Amino acid sequence: MRHFLTTLDYSRDELQGFLDVAARMKAGPHDKPLEGKSIALLFFNPSLRTRTSFELGAHQLGMKAIVLEPGKGAWPIEFEDGVVMDGDPEEHVREVARVLSRYVDAIAVRAFPKFQRWEDDREDRVIRAFAAHATVPVINMETITHPCQELALLLTLQERLGRTDGKKFLLTWTYHPKPLNTAVANSALIIAAKFGFDVTLLCPTPEYALDPRYMEAAASLTKAQGRSLTVTHDVDAAYQGADIVYAKSWGALPYFGRWADEKPIRDAHRHFMVDQRKMELTPDGLFSHCLPVRRNVKVTDEVLDSPRAIHIDEAENRIHVQKAMMSALLGGR
Amino acid sequence: MRHFLTTLDYSRDELQGFLDVAARMKAGPHDKPLEGKSIALLFFNPSLRTRTSFELGAHQLGMKAIVLEPGKGAWPIEFEDGVVMDGDPEEHVREVARVLSRYVDAIAVRAFPKFQRWEDDREDRVIRAFAAHATVPVINMETITHPCQELALLLTLQERLGRTDGKKFLLTWTYHPKPLNTAVANSALIIAAKFGFDVTLLCPTPEYALDPRYMEAAASLTKAQGRSLTVTHDVDAAYQGADIVYAKSWGALPYFGRWADEKPIRDAHRHFMVDQRKMELTPDGLFSHCLPVRRNVKVTDEVLDSPRAIHIDEAENRIHVQKAMMSALLGGR
Amino acid sequence: MRHFLTTLDYSRDELQGFLDVAARMKAGPHDKPLEGKSIALLFFNPSLRTRTSFELGAHQLGMKAIVLEPGKGAWPIEFEDGVVMDGDPEEHVREVARVLSRYVDAIAVRAFPKFQRWEDDREDRVIRAFAAHATVPVINMETITHPCQELALLLTLQERLGRTDGKKFLLTWTYHPKPLNTAVANSALIIAAKFGFDVTLLCPTPEYALDPRYMEAAASLTKAQGRSLTVTHDVDAAYQGADIVYAKSWGALPYFGRWADEKPIRDAHRHFMVDQRKMELTPDGLFSHCLPVRRNVKVTDEVLDSPRAIHIDEAENRIHVQKAMMSALLGGR
Repeated sequence: MRHFLTTLDYSRDELQGFLDVAARMKAGPHDKPLEGKSIALLFFNPSLRTRTSFELGAHQLGMKAIVLEPGKGAWPIEFEDGVVMDGDPEEHVREVARVLSRYVDAIAVRAFPKFQRWEDDREDRVIRAFAAHATVPVINMETITHPCQELALLLTLQERLGRTDGKKFLLTWTYHPKPLNTAVANSALIIAAKFGFDVTLLCPTPEYALDPRYMEAAASLTKAQGRSLTVTHDVDAAYQGADIVYAKSWGALPYFGRWADEKPIRDAHRHFMVDQRKMELTPDGLFSHCLPVRRNVKVTDEVLDSPRAIHIDEAENRIHVQKAMMSALLGGR
Repeated sequence: MRHFLTTLDYSRDELQGFLDVAARMKAGPHDKPLEGKSIALLFFNPSLRTRTSFELGAHQLGMKAIVLEPGKGAWPIEFEDGVVMDGDPEEHVREVARVLSRYVDAIAVRAFPKFQRWEDDREDRVIRAFAAHATVPVINMETITHPCQELALLLTLQERLGRTDGKKFLLTWTYHPKPLNTAVANSALIIAAKFGFDVTLLCPTPEYALDPRYMEAAASLTKAQGRSLTVTHDVDAAYQGADIVYAKSWGALPYFGRWADEKPIRDAHRHFMVDQRKMELTPDGLFSHCLPVRRNVKVTDEVLDSPRAIHIDEAENRIHVQKAMMSALLGGR
Repeated sequence: MRHFLTTLDYSRDELQGFLDVAARMKAGPHDKPLEGKSIALLFFNPSLRTRTSFELGAHQLGMKAIVLEPGKGAWPIEFEDGVVMDGDPEEHVREVARVLSRYVDAIAVRAFPKFQRWEDDREDRVIRAFAAHATVPVINMETITHPCQELALLLTLQERLGRTDGKKFLLTWTYHPKPLNTAVANSALIIAAKFGFDVTLLCPTPEYALDPRYMEAAASLTKAQGRSLTVTHDVDAAYQGADIVYAKSWGALPYFGRWADEKPIRDAHRHFMVDQRKMELTPDGLFSHCLPVRRNVKVTDEVLDSPRAIHIDEAENRIHVQKAMMSALLGGR
């Protein structure tokens, strides 16, 4: 039994296997390889694409998905071990994970950081606790990484660019009124590195570098394939030669939990918004974003509505890659 | 591809076609004409009948329905074009509609007015935006009209009255503690007019007339068939000869957004409540209401629990007419 | 047509019939005896196990389950007859129950007490009103009793103990920061009494005795089978000889609605927490709890993580007994 918590646990070949199955499932009708099985979808945070693509994808594989929202429709949950549970949580993940494992064949979890202490959030305790106590595969629907989004992005890029080795991947920070999760940024960095891109991370200041765990993984992955990882704060230079511009906003880790201090820096970099002028610095570079995206804040209407934009394809591909991944994890064929 | 936004877009014959299929589906077992298809049900407002009848009806046709609640379980959405999205909404309907169109075969939307400016609400922007950007059929689950309720009402009336031409339809305003949506009133007016009733609109004052778009449509539809449209404030006269008394409360449009000023008028007309005395002014007239209905506020227990009341039948018929309509829109047979 | 509101309405033989079918369903694959049918699951209160086990269990029987949350996704409901509905509720249970009965083949209801006046709550008005007005079977998903939990408990005990007659059942009150529902305590008492246990109720003071309706039923059921019902406040004596220790917290009925006065008593009895020392007073006694359970408040980690603990089995058995019960009620075979 294997979980799907982060793509760092999977080889490039294994991930390519998921992508190949996904492409076949996308191409046409398929049977229901997981008929009679079931999955619990636990949302600690909101969702539109993830909810729809997992619930519908599971159904198309023959499975039944149960959607649970702990703290809303379901009981709040404790994740720490050994604690005297006299606070809000009514039950412990030990019970939740073990009971759900009796009912369903897989447990998928969305659990964003709490945004108070990065030292805590980087432990990814919620999904790690489910993985520790569940007796069925646990799937990451976005915590501090977003591996399903990674697969969707890669499938979309392979559809457009073919083999991605040696292509240039630009991950650009963009402004957003709130400090957001680094999950998709972490994920974009490591999947681009794993699939042979030359990777550039463009961000306002060195403080916007991602967690060392992901920076080092990306450095190691690019190096092993003779590729480069570059961090820069020079917008125009970064766009030069990019085959794909991937935009995402995130909060700077050194300011975690004291976000008021980060706000002036963030506000001073609204000009990182992706626009047509910047895109024209690339050789027909593609644009994408994981969604949800704020128009004319992260990226202009002009870019989003241009043929360069492949964010809708990427969103569509969520359902195909997730079906392939679930099918592999749950023994479907 | 056709949307189902308002019955004004459909001919009487087309709508009768839906009703005929609905009656056949109600009569007995049927196959699953939309096997393998799917529908997203977007609820911006609460629902019991609509949720149940759409989710279950879709299932009975062989479809998978995904229920989404933007702003609760899903992200809040922007509907204006060209806006700098630095407010609450995290994504734009352009993305939502296009992404959902990749996942599902139809999108159904419930989006009530905001009750601040009728000039805005009457544009029906939410569902119109979905219709503009979706590449699959968009279905109205109640916005400023409620076309599914119209079909359910008509099927119920045809079950009881047979051919409806020349019968008398009374739409009566009733008291409710809050100013409600005009959607069902608009819908009752136009469907009754379209199906050949002589239509009477009974309301407290001329200010309770409905939007000119629907008043004029009803006038034109009745006239074309040699029938009448009457607006009156005389309760007893209005009930005379009614074959069906259809009750609904709504807020007066001239007071839109300054509801405190409307309250005294509303409060002065509590006696519009449908009761047994009024019903006895009709020749065995039927009573119905779209639900939810407040007992002993809009209508007395005595009327609701009498054989004249066909509101439960009308509610049941929601599922049958919606199945017929979805089947037609999505190419089922 | 029969409802499933309380096991007091069913004979021991009938209940054993459910348990036998549940054991067969648990043992291996089975067909879909309720194919094409449907059920509405109404949650007035949160749920994880109940939601999952009912929605998934219904699916495994071939049914479609519709989940409704009145007051959240659906309209608030009035339950009193004859009332002028000018408060919050937008519709009456008479309409809700009758309309749902047109759509679905069964209605399951979770409705906890309001915790203000026990004289009101003990009438179980919400589910009784559904049972009165629905024209399909109504199923209790926990109100002031929790009969599905009872069946799950008994199936689990029969798996471990075989025939239960003459075994000793200890129901022990435990501390919880809030005054909880007596439903599971009521249910444990009557199902243990019905299945031939010698039953001991251990609680802090006489004020924690359960409602006379359930105390008297348990007394009568035990007496009829030559067994005993004992109420005690002596912790160590109570554990002596117990084959099963069943823990639950509840609020003392004499303090209903004035819970601040009960708090000192509750706080003074934190030592009722189930721990290893107490468990060792039993001859290999089993431990269980209905879940959710607060670790190290109601019961220690040591006990919960020991082989004596059968709470996960009991939770799993919810799905099996509910499938058996639904199958019997809805004529599946």
